[in-house]
Amino acid sequence: MTSNFHTLKPTPLFTAGSASRPERDLLGERQVPADAYFGIQTLRALENFQITGITLNHFPNLVKALAMVKKAAARANCELGYLHKDLAEFIGIACDEIIAGKLHDHFLVDMIQGGAGTSTNMNTNEVIANRALELLGHEKGDYKKVHPNNHVNLSQSTNDVYPTAINLAILLSYSDLVDAMEQLCQEFDKKAAEFSSVIKMGRTQLQDAVPMTLGQEFAAFAATVREDVDRVKELVELFKEINMGGTAIGTGINTDPDYGQLVVAALSDISGIDFVCAENLVEATSDTGAFVIFSGVMKRIAVKISKICNDLRLLSSGPRAGLNEINLPPMQPGSSIMPGKVNPVIPEVVNQVAYQVIGNDLTITLAAESGQLQLNVMEPVIAFNLLQSMRLMTQAMNTLAHRCVSGITANEHRCRELVENSIGLITAVTPFIGYENATRIAKEALNSGRSVKELVLEEGLLNEEELNDILQPENMTRPRKVALKGKA
Amino acid sequence: MTSNFHTLKPTPLFTAGSASRPERDLLGERQVPADAYFGIQTLRALENFQITGITLNHFPNLVKALAMVKKAAARANCELGYLHKDLAEFIGIACDEIIAGKLHDHFLVDMIQGGAGTSTNMNTNEVIANRALELLGHEKGDYKKVHPNNHVNLSQSTNDVYPTAINLAILLSYSDLVDAMEQLCQEFDKKAAEFSSVIKMGRTQLQDAVPMTLGQEFAAFAATVREDVDRVKELVELFKEINMGGTAIGTGINTDPDYGQLVVAALSDISGIDFVCAENLVEATSDTGAFVIFSGVMKRIAVKISKICNDLRLLSSGPRAGLNEINLPPMQPGSSIMPGKVNPVIPEVVNQVAYQVIGNDLTITLAAESGQLQLNVMEPVIAFNLLQSMRLMTQAMNTLAHRCVSGITANEHRCRELVENSIGLITAVTPFIGYENATRIAKEALNSGRSVKELVLEEGLLNEEELNDILQPENMTRPRKVALKGKA
Amino acid sequence: MTSNFHTLKPTPLFTAGSASRPERDLLGERQVPADAYFGIQTLRALENFQITGITLNHFPNLVKALAMVKKAAARANCELGYLHKDLAEFIGIACDEIIAGKLHDHFLVDMIQGGAGTSTNMNTNEVIANRALELLGHEKGDYKKVHPNNHVNLSQSTNDVYPTAINLAILLSYSDLVDAMEQLCQEFDKKAAEFSSVIKMGRTQLQDAVPMTLGQEFAAFAATVREDVDRVKELVELFKEINMGGTAIGTGINTDPDYGQLVVAALSDISGIDFVCAENLVEATSDTGAFVIFSGVMKRIAVKISKICNDLRLLSSGPRAGLNEINLPPMQPGSSIMPGKVNPVIPEVVNQVAYQVIGNDLTITLAAESGQLQLNVMEPVIAFNLLQSMRLMTQAMNTLAHRCVSGITANEHRCRELVENSIGLITAVTPFIGYENATRIAKEALNSGRSVKELVLEEGLLNEEELNDILQPENMTRPRKVALKGKA
Amino acid sequence: MTSNFHTLKPTPLFTAGSASRPERDLLGERQVPADAYFGIQTLRALENFQITGITLNHFPNLVKALAMVKKAAARANCELGYLHKDLAEFIGIACDEIIAGKLHDHFLVDMIQGGAGTSTNMNTNEVIANRALELLGHEKGDYKKVHPNNHVNLSQSTNDVYPTAINLAILLSYSDLVDAMEQLCQEFDKKAAEFSSVIKMGRTQLQDAVPMTLGQEFAAFAATVREDVDRVKELVELFKEINMGGTAIGTGINTDPDYGQLVVAALSDISGIDFVCAENLVEATSDTGAFVIFSGVMKRIAVKISKICNDLRLLSSGPRAGLNEINLPPMQPGSSIMPGKVNPVIPEVVNQVAYQVIGNDLTITLAAESGQLQLNVMEPVIAFNLLQSMRLMTQAMNTLAHRCVSGITANEHRCRELVENSIGLITAVTPFIGYENATRIAKEALNSGRSVKELVLEEGLLNEEELNDILQPENMTRPRKVALKGKA
Repeated sequence: MTSNFHTLKPTPLFTAGSASRPERDLLGERQVPADAYFGIQTLRALENFQITGITLNHFPNLVKALAMVKKAAARANCELGYLHKDLAEFIGIACDEIIAGKLHDHFLVDMIQGGAGTSTNMNTNEVIANRALELLGHEKGDYKKVHPNNHVNLSQSTNDVYPTAINLAILLSYSDLVDAMEQLCQEFDKKAAEFSSVIKMGRTQLQDAVPMTLGQEFAAFAATVREDVDRVKELVELFKEINMGGTAIGTGINTDPDYGQLVVAALSDISGIDFVCAENLVEATSDTGAFVIFSGVMKRIAVKISKICNDLRLLSSGPRAGLNEINLPPMQPGSSIMPGKVNPVIPEVVNQVAYQVIGNDLTITLAAESGQLQLNVMEPVIAFNLLQSMRLMTQAMNTLAHRCVSGITANEHRCRELVENSIGLITAVTPFIGYENATRIAKEALNSGRSVKELVLEEGLLNEEELNDILQPENMTRPRKVALKGKA
Repeated sequence: MTSNFHTLKPTPLFTAGSASRPERDLLGERQVPADAYFGIQTLRALENFQITGITLNHFPNLVKALAMVKKAAARANCELGYLHKDLAEFIGIACDEIIAGKLHDHFLVDMIQGGAGTSTNMNTNEVIANRALELLGHEKGDYKKVHPNNHVNLSQSTNDVYPTAINLAILLSYSDLVDAMEQLCQEFDKKAAEFSSVIKMGRTQLQDAVPMTLGQEFAAFAATVREDVDRVKELVELFKEINMGGTAIGTGINTDPDYGQLVVAALSDISGIDFVCAENLVEATSDTGAFVIFSGVMKRIAVKISKICNDLRLLSSGPRAGLNEINLPPMQPGSSIMPGKVNPVIPEVVNQVAYQVIGNDLTITLAAESGQLQLNVMEPVIAFNLLQSMRLMTQAMNTLAHRCVSGITANEHRCRELVENSIGLITAVTPFIGYENATRIAKEALNSGRSVKELVLEEGLLNEEELNDILQPENMTRPRKVALKGKA
Repeated sequence: MTSNFHTLKPTPLFTAGSASRPERDLLGERQVPADAYFGIQTLRALENFQITGITLNHFPNLVKALAMVKKAAARANCELGYLHKDLAEFIGIACDEIIAGKLHDHFLVDMIQGGAGTSTNMNTNEVIANRALELLGHEKGDYKKVHPNNHVNLSQSTNDVYPTAINLAILLSYSDLVDAMEQLCQEFDKKAAEFSSVIKMGRTQLQDAVPMTLGQEFAAFAATVREDVDRVKELVELFKEINMGGTAIGTGINTDPDYGQLVVAALSDISGIDFVCAENLVEATSDTGAFVIFSGVMKRIAVKISKICNDLRLLSSGPRAGLNEINLPPMQPGSSIMPGKVNPVIPEVVNQVAYQVIGNDLTITLAAESGQLQLNVMEPVIAFNLLQSMRLMTQAMNTLAHRCVSGITANEHRCRELVENSIGLITAVTPFIGYENATRIAKEALNSGRSVKELVLEEGLLNEEELNDILQPENMTRPRKVALKGKA
Repeated sequence: MTSNFHTLKPTPLFTAGSASRPERDLLGERQVPADAYFGIQTLRALENFQITGITLNHFPNLVKALAMVKKAAARANCELGYLHKDLAEFIGIACDEIIAGKLHDHFLVDMIQGGAGTSTNMNTNEVIANRALELLGHEKGDYKKVHPNNHVNLSQSTNDVYPTAINLAILLSYSDLVDAMEQLCQEFDKKAAEFSSVIKMGRTQLQDAVPMTLGQEFAAFAATVREDVDRVKELVELFKEINMGGTAIGTGINTDPDYGQLVVAALSDISGIDFVCAENLVEATSDTGAFVIFSGVMKRIAVKISKICNDLRLLSSGPRAGLNEINLPPMQPGSSIMPGKVNPVIPEVVNQVAYQVIGNDLTITLAAESGQLQLNVMEPVIAFNLLQSMRLMTQAMNTLAHRCVSGITANEHRCRELVENSIGLITAVTPFIGYENATRIAKEALNSGRSVKELVLEEGLLNEEELNDILQPENMTRPRKVALKGKA
């Protein structure tokens, strides 16, 4: 049994009758569970946004990213003298604990939320403040000592923290995605080598075309995925441009002129990723173009992987009434009513993931188009869909690589038989016998059911030796010098 | 704190070192946790489909629907003499327990799965078989006594059970959706009555047009949602046509000629919903048209609700530099950096839900288009997205009704002031002073900043009494007989 | 050669050095070509909207609908005494000429335009006014006699005229669509009858399932399209609710209280379609829900037709290395390099139309979501896409019916051979030999390449007579009473 | 009047009773109009594909690209000795005439077509062959001398010619697109400079946030479009990788080993674009990834431009009951019923173009996902939508730049007034008076309607000099060193 397998299930937030502490905000006072690290603003968000049931901590890299951003801001504020060294230190320790995964249970706001991520930012600010208070020996909620806004959020706005954290979460998730893509490529490469001498019919428009090797077919799968590794690597670079220091609308109100560069440097140091400050912070604050184009790349991968899975299902169709050129490894019994049936379940689930990713791309597009003036308030649904798409594609490609492609076998005899019976061989012969002869023989083969080879020999257009040479697999599956007879 | 609030979080499936029992299928033997109600085929599915982490029991109505279908099949098989009465009885008891929500923890397959729902069907068959075994005093896994396929799945195929269960799950979820829609209508109706005498400027293309009442504006919101209640009610009827009895491909292979009608009648009885057997079972087995059109209705609702939320955000923009005609109830502090700011967080989250539903509709469309020959193997992703869209829209409309619309107040003075200063009043005056005069005065008002009323009086085109009559709100916000002067 | 075939090509609007007449509007004076029926506002629109090059007259039903609406308004205004009888008469004659197709060359505004259709409405008003002037013996442009706004547009606004005309254009286009759908159904029905005794393998998940007839397969195609005829007929009814009388924002400003009912009655009389006035005119003025849901139905048809075309291409794949169960009629040589290749070009073009229609549905959705306050200014792009989708689907289904389906032939021998060799026969035998035996034999057949029938006989599980009875096509392709041995 | 303005209108293909010549193909003999340069295969395509009415020559760059490819192939074949020098020369002359636009009237196949572009390729082959025949003094149709397949199409397949020509057509269209983008940037830049001292309220979530300059707002528009110029330039590079030499399925069957490099070099020379041969020709033949990602960039531009147009419409809303911060230049009267109304018609039409482009992207995605095995037969609908999107965006951005942005003026007084009355000023004051004071004053200002400045002075929290300094526009619209009082 896979050890790291888990499922999502509903769990109660608070036990009945538990103790509480009072907190206040602009709207008044509320009781917060005494042992909660989050505070009143998170509480309100939990009540306001009962939407998907999928919480921030379902995406650990997002929580980790938020903590890294907060740590970077504390460091920059401390360097500039706006935040006391002790405070900065304990805020940093709290952040480190989150980065290490210790407090993720307290990041509970729904991924889809109003307020442009303010609730996510405040959930983070509150957890850090309360953990720092605890570390400093104070009571949770004693915000005069460590304040979620005045200290943890100092020199920041949701409008720079949240998009920066999304960028970072994507960058943290990206290596798993690329790993999965590269493993899939490798499995295709292995099969390409293994099947390099399996001759088979190529098909265009589902009609018999001309011969190729099964290895060429699998090498093309590898090549097409590998190209996308390049696209992902290129375009993920866009996320290294961040808008920290822009605060509310990108003008940098209430920040020190040196803060922007310092916080970017700190975040680069903490995360190990080379961030740069956006050239135009006003633009960067409302723009979601990087999400749109990166989701476009995810969509492109989905389209390609879906095409590949469609092909795998076609090639393995049968076993008797289909193409039956390859066998997928059986993963589970295929039918509750038909004994012995085995289905291509892995490509099927990957196709569905692709459709989900394409749908998610539309959601992202719609949300991106809805930006207004100095902000795009729809970023939470963008973050949710993009991080989900990355995860789904990662899972799908791992599953495809290791539960399907690695176990594929070829029906070599069947493949060769289809070539030998094919009328498509006529194309290879055409340069030697001319287009008119070729067309006539193709028609006759189709009508009579006889083979192209037989008919060419019968008519004496070529002798057996010539024909065998032309129909050598290695001569039909790549360019070759042709004799004078076929020249125009 | 809302008592029924819950979140999704990862939980381990099995505890380390727990006991197990062996089970066998087509592919060989595996160890299943001893206390699991599910069996070997579910186990394989858990391993094969680690995709979304969102399991069948995240949609309790789907689990309930599956059990109802199984109970109906057992009853029909028993009536026809194919299933022993005792077996049918205990299968029925196990189904009733599932319907009552007692065994949902054992429905653990990922919602997105390959195999066209076979794993969902087998998860159901296995849980029912093992629970029936237990009730009969046998060991779990002792399938000779009660067999997941031979008994629980008798006369069925995944290909009729699964789509039927999805239909039923939608029908079971539908009343919550309609309730939410109707509550939202009611809240809009209340506001329409409350604001019936608040005169304000109507706007087309965001430009000042002619006066209306705020009540008319809210009545239109109610009307547009109410129309969709009608559409939902009409189109949900499509799901009452089911394909039970079609088995593998709709030809009804391995069923008794009377089975189809009996199982449909039984399911109608058990669920309280009047199902009918599809006229063409071959068509019904591969067709996903009902999902596509119903998702289209969900999309239409999403589009409308999104438009309404956009309007609410526009009308409440400000407080000083926006339209500021209405106030949304403050639900949470709006900014981590700007004191006193309150944002329209509820409409914002509803907009995002709308984008998700529109994206889901695309996923459903893609999956529907991928049906091939006698089956659409992509139904799991359709079911997942459609049930999720229904739930999201239900949650969103409840949230909008009770956390936003119910608390909206009007800035009556502001609304009236904008009317009185508006150049748009000129349209009401046009029939009395002619189009040429009207155009001239409109231009002058715009250039000079003076009011239309003032200019009309100054030019002596109408006297104050006439003008006051024309500009009475009740005369500008509905049709009226106009005097001769304006006639063509 | 099809006589009514035509193409779109660029043509110059005006010849160089042609005479002109001056016209004035709010923005100043401009020269209009002397022989143009349109006026200054159309001229500005021609300059402002150089977008698609696809003009209003590319959709003759839209132009016709606009003229019918104008005629109805003139009649209602005349009855109420707001428009002189002579004016109404000559406006009516001009409208009749447009309805008869005589002046379509003057409807030249781009289908995609800003201004919520104002340019379309003014193009119509101007052409009618100038043609009426001409009929009355006046000069074009002498608008004091017949004015585009004061007379032709009396009691109207673009905001009621334009959406009403779109509704009417859809209703006028709808019968061609339904005709095409019904003809396609009939062709499928004919083939269903023709192929009713052709036994073949049914396939689920592209894997061999159980036998069926090719007639059942084609009957399912007919059934699925026929269902959509019902959906189209139901939902087209929504367009019979119109907002005439609402004028600018649905409040009916500047209309007589009796006007609304009169204009609706007049339009019903002129068009022969029973229109009703929308209950809530404010709602009806900004709402685009009917377009969204009707486009959803177009999308559903597209999805189904695309699935059918995918199936036709699969079933006709080959001729040697594919399924090769049916032959599509050859419509054109298939390759510039491969002699004798014939491709399924008609299903291929229909698939592409389906993708276009699904893309158009998204454009419509986006535009619908963009409505703001009292109007949806994006209606032009909605009208363009919806009318185009209707036309494309009509053309595609006609093409599919008459250039493909009507000429399909079956490879009966090939179909039967695949059944006889199939392991899928085991499902029919299972009730008689039990699931364990069945599974074992299925495996052995797959491994050995031998037939199920042979193996069952060899093992003496059934005798030849029993087996022949079970494997009768008519016994495998529908429900039947089964003997005791298979009972649970 | 714009001189290059044109519309699409139906024109008859052939005049009645015109002379004809017989031609033959695989399916038999047909009469072709005597004066037609196209031949029998084009004729069949005209009959088979009556879909959109939009023909190949609606995209002149595509026709030009096809001719360049053919010229390159002829040159390569000649160099290798497969094509006689005279033939190559006259084929080249015919190609040059097409490149010069002389024979576009004969490219009449519908853009949406079955057969994977074979009809487009054959239309090209036939026109070139017949024109070359004519130039050589032969009769049209005398294909023994110059044959569409044997000579013009030598060493080629539709499957390498067609995608290569699409790539080239995109590259030929790309500079107009980039020009339009850059002109739009420049217009925004000009306004950014012009409005650099206009202080206004920034808005997040449509709520008053903090001050900025109108110049900053327009500079952000310029920046966001300029980023996309970079993206377009990067990604258009993908189209320089072509699959010439792959022929039918990428294996290069029937080509000389040296042909691939020669034809790519020839095409580079003819087009002036540095093409390279795809590394894996099998992959390149079926892959449509470059179209998907480039369409994704078009979608990203559409999303951004749509957001900008939404902003322009918001900022110019009014004139009295809206934000009214800027004025768009009036382009046409705005209403048929409301005198003096002027609407933002240019942004409105651009929004609609954006929706069309996003819909087109979906069509492209669907078509891309439908590739099967060695080919994607849906490329025609991809080419149609991508070339249309490029054209639409080019037109839209030109229109936006020159018919809207260039004429925008600011309502400077109104902008300043909104800032001075705004409660959002409190954010700038917060670091000096503390968060608690700030929140209290913000609340009081909202409730009392008084200004922030007034209240701060009244409470004596700051003196007038301090306050004036803090509220200097240049201090509120960028980072600044803040005094100790605000430190944490």
